[in-house]
Amino acid sequence: MSKKMDMDTLVGLCKSRGFIFPGSDIYGGLANTWDYGPLGIELLNNIKSAWWKKFVRQNLNVVGLDSALLMNPKVWEASGHIGGFNDPLIDCKDCKSRYRADKLVEEYHQDKEEEVTGIDGWSEKQLKDFIENNEIKCPQCGEINYTDIREFNLMFKTFQGVTEDSQSEVYLRPETAQGIFINFKNVARSCRKQVPFGIAQIGKSFRNEITPGNFIFRTREFEQMEMEFFCHPGEGGKWYDYWKEFCHKWLLDLGVSPDSIRMRDHDENELSHYSDATTDIEFKFPFGWGELWGVANRTDFDLKRHMEHSKKDLSYQDPITQEKFVPYVIEPSVGLNRLALAFLADCYQEEELEKNSRTVLKIHPVLAPFKAAVLPLSKKLSDEAMEVFDKLNDKFMLDFDEKGSIGKRYRRQDEIGTPFCITFDFDSLEDKCVTIRDRDSMEQSRISINEAEKFLEEKLKY
Amino acid sequence: MSKKMDMDTLVGLCKSRGFIFPGSDIYGGLANTWDYGPLGIELLNNIKSAWWKKFVRQNLNVVGLDSALLMNPKVWEASGHIGGFNDPLIDCKDCKSRYRADKLVEEYHQDKEEEVTGIDGWSEKQLKDFIENNEIKCPQCGEINYTDIREFNLMFKTFQGVTEDSQSEVYLRPETAQGIFINFKNVARSCRKQVPFGIAQIGKSFRNEITPGNFIFRTREFEQMEMEFFCHPGEGGKWYDYWKEFCHKWLLDLGVSPDSIRMRDHDENELSHYSDATTDIEFKFPFGWGELWGVANRTDFDLKRHMEHSKKDLSYQDPITQEKFVPYVIEPSVGLNRLALAFLADCYQEEELEKNSRTVLKIHPVLAPFKAAVLPLSKKLSDEAMEVFDKLNDKFMLDFDEKGSIGKRYRRQDEIGTPFCITFDFDSLEDKCVTIRDRDSMEQSRISINEAEKFLEEKLKY
Repeated sequence: MSKKMDMDTLVGLCKSRGFIFPGSDIYGGLANTWDYGPLGIELLNNIKSAWWKKFVRQNLNVVGLDSALLMNPKVWEASGHIGGFNDPLIDCKDCKSRYRADKLVEEYHQDKEEEVTGIDGWSEKQLKDFIENNEIKCPQCGEINYTDIREFNLMFKTFQGVTEDSQSEVYLRPETAQGIFINFKNVARSCRKQVPFGIAQIGKSFRNEITPGNFIFRTREFEQMEMEFFCHPGEGGKWYDYWKEFCHKWLLDLGVSPDSIRMRDHDENELSHYSDATTDIEFKFPFGWGELWGVANRTDFDLKRHMEHSKKDLSYQDPITQEKFVPYVIEPSVGLNRLALAFLADCYQEEELEKNSRTVLKIHPVLAPFKAAVLPLSKKLSDEAMEVFDKLNDKFMLDFDEKGSIGKRYRRQDEIGTPFCITFDFDSLEDKCVTIRDRDSMEQSRISINEAEKFLEEKLKY
Repeated sequence: MSKKMDMDTLVGLCKSRGFIFPGSDIYGGLANTWDYGPLGIELLNNIKSAWWKKFVRQNLNVVGLDSALLMNPKVWEASGHIGGFNDPLIDCKDCKSRYRADKLVEEYHQDKEEEVTGIDGWSEKQLKDFIENNEIKCPQCGEINYTDIREFNLMFKTFQGVTEDSQSEVYLRPETAQGIFINFKNVARSCRKQVPFGIAQIGKSFRNEITPGNFIFRTREFEQMEMEFFCHPGEGGKWYDYWKEFCHKWLLDLGVSPDSIRMRDHDENELSHYSDATTDIEFKFPFGWGELWGVANRTDFDLKRHMEHSKKDLSYQDPITQEKFVPYVIEPSVGLNRLALAFLADCYQEEELEKNSRTVLKIHPVLAPFKAAVLPLSKKLSDEAMEVFDKLNDKFMLDFDEKGSIGKRYRRQDEIGTPFCITFDFDSLEDKCVTIRDRDSMEQSRISINEAEKFLEEKLKY
């Protein structure tokens, strides 16, 4: 029998075990920022590596990129972010509280336990009409006396340069994607890549959300893993299907339960202005279904906009057919932080055992912060156990724990998802063997120290 | 015979081969920003992994962290960055040009081909006096008619939040170190770490420098690899020496030429206000000696400041001696980007061969973007060569190249630092062997396909 964790328990465990701390904690925090502790950073790094391995390394037609966070503001004019990347805000005239109009509508549905999608695509008028027609009250004071809806740009603004004339307004990027589009030609030329090919990037983005929340699900500062796959316009549909399936499989291969994810196609009025087709891979978070991964057919929208604004030719000529065209772009885009949340939520379990219970993080070995923990049965065996540790640690991230009873140490490792515990006991001195205990089955087996490396390697194949 | 490259050649090669492009290139750039291309991002990732492996994974008493870039502004009040993190600016009254006063002094020395250090520690008055006494002319108009020196804060400022009352000024962090100090207690508690122990972090920082330059040596947006090692005040000197030596060895182990680095201790008037002792590991860049790695004994300065400002107890009690103290901190801090520049500059060579010449990047295999390139001798062998590629690519980042003569392909791989070329020829179909060609010696040997994985693994031991 096992039980899934609720959000508060998860947040508590993340803090107490060193996965995730509130940001600026000793100063009372800073609205909705989070710091990743020693185990959290290992988890993030493992997710990034698994993504990079499957999307970049093992795909000869995908290469990586790391573009600067600060870009020429013309990039955001071209992309439409300066003009159109807004949240619809509405004020209560009575109590002066400010809200996102679409969230008021969403919460109205949630209160009625109705599921609703597609509000993202509503116009200002649709939102205002809905609020008025359904007499949605101000959550703060209960009145119905709203201002008109105004648009608030979500980009963080800053100033670069020091001399007054050269000092210029720049923005923290709200997505990594545009850094890829503007490098399409430089990458294709320098790496002699032919369409179809993709450019992948991992990096921080910033959005000045009015309502961040749900732990690390929505934060103003977040990390994205995006790939833009450039293809012939006639093959957009084919590659769209390909990458949708690829992302889905990536999640399943890393152990995400099939019941925890679903695919949801955007309907026509929900689609972004640049998109031909979009699917959200949604995950069943402790707080409900939420977007995890967006896969979009962005068409030739972005490249064409950058051609117009930069006056550079970003079209592509096929070396065989000589056909010249502006490529279509398929974009699988996922947030690293909410991916981490999904893995944690999916894997944390409270298990009732015969005599007691345990908390266990049944996370895929590839993602686990520690691959194994080396445990000397007695402190007298520390030196010899440390030799085992040193030998394996060259290849794998390991923990070494000599404090408390073996049972307690097992529980501690269960809770942080360590797939294997390697116990060095007094017999080990003689038979050169150790006991390996499996996190999930809790079964133990005895193997030669010399075979331990091979054993872990096999278990970590991915 | 071999020749080192000058800076312009290096910048050109970096762009043409996909290491580093000018940022926002199609829009005419954005002052001194750079985008890392497909090979550049692999190089950066490899440097980060090598650092993480030696500083974190293989040190049981060092753990990782990834703190938020945006922090509560009180952090920067406590650290002294709001009050004191300034550049001394001076204007020419005649032509209105603006300069960093310390740079005017530095360039004055450079023009005289004198080497000078310690200007960082000069007071405003020292700088102004030196400029006046030596009659340093305005580099723009040639006059000597300056304003007084004024201090300009180097932190990028932005605004978070959307409702007017809650909207608050926040800063892009100018260093990752403070994110570590404020998490000292959370990390020690959650990971049950006892002093001495260290916390390491890799991440972006931002400084609004008036004179960035020298390619990726000094940029406003840059990535740091910092570690704060907390120890007993009485052991500060010991650990300072330990980490200084550790960093030096890390560079040498990765193939940096001993002639290219030197250690320079700061003298007393150059030391930062928080530091007891600081050493710069300097590297001989194409433009001259420059700081690569700073190792500082920061004493208990930062923790004490955060105690005062946060009113939280950040002292540590030794579980054995019961002694209570505020730990001293040893900080090895290196910039990832200038480290990448150092490796590139140190490894790029133009070699005169018997009949012709070649450009070769003799970079350590662990850092090389591609570990090997698989080359089918003829396009007819592509499918079979691809099988070799697939087999090895599961473990190693590989290139696959079937375009042009084998000689041309060797040269291409030499230039991007690929340590091994694996050629699949018609004999390979029969004898199941491939030819492995070594980048540095250019020697070729024939080995079984089944042994190739083992071969690469051996060469990549680190």
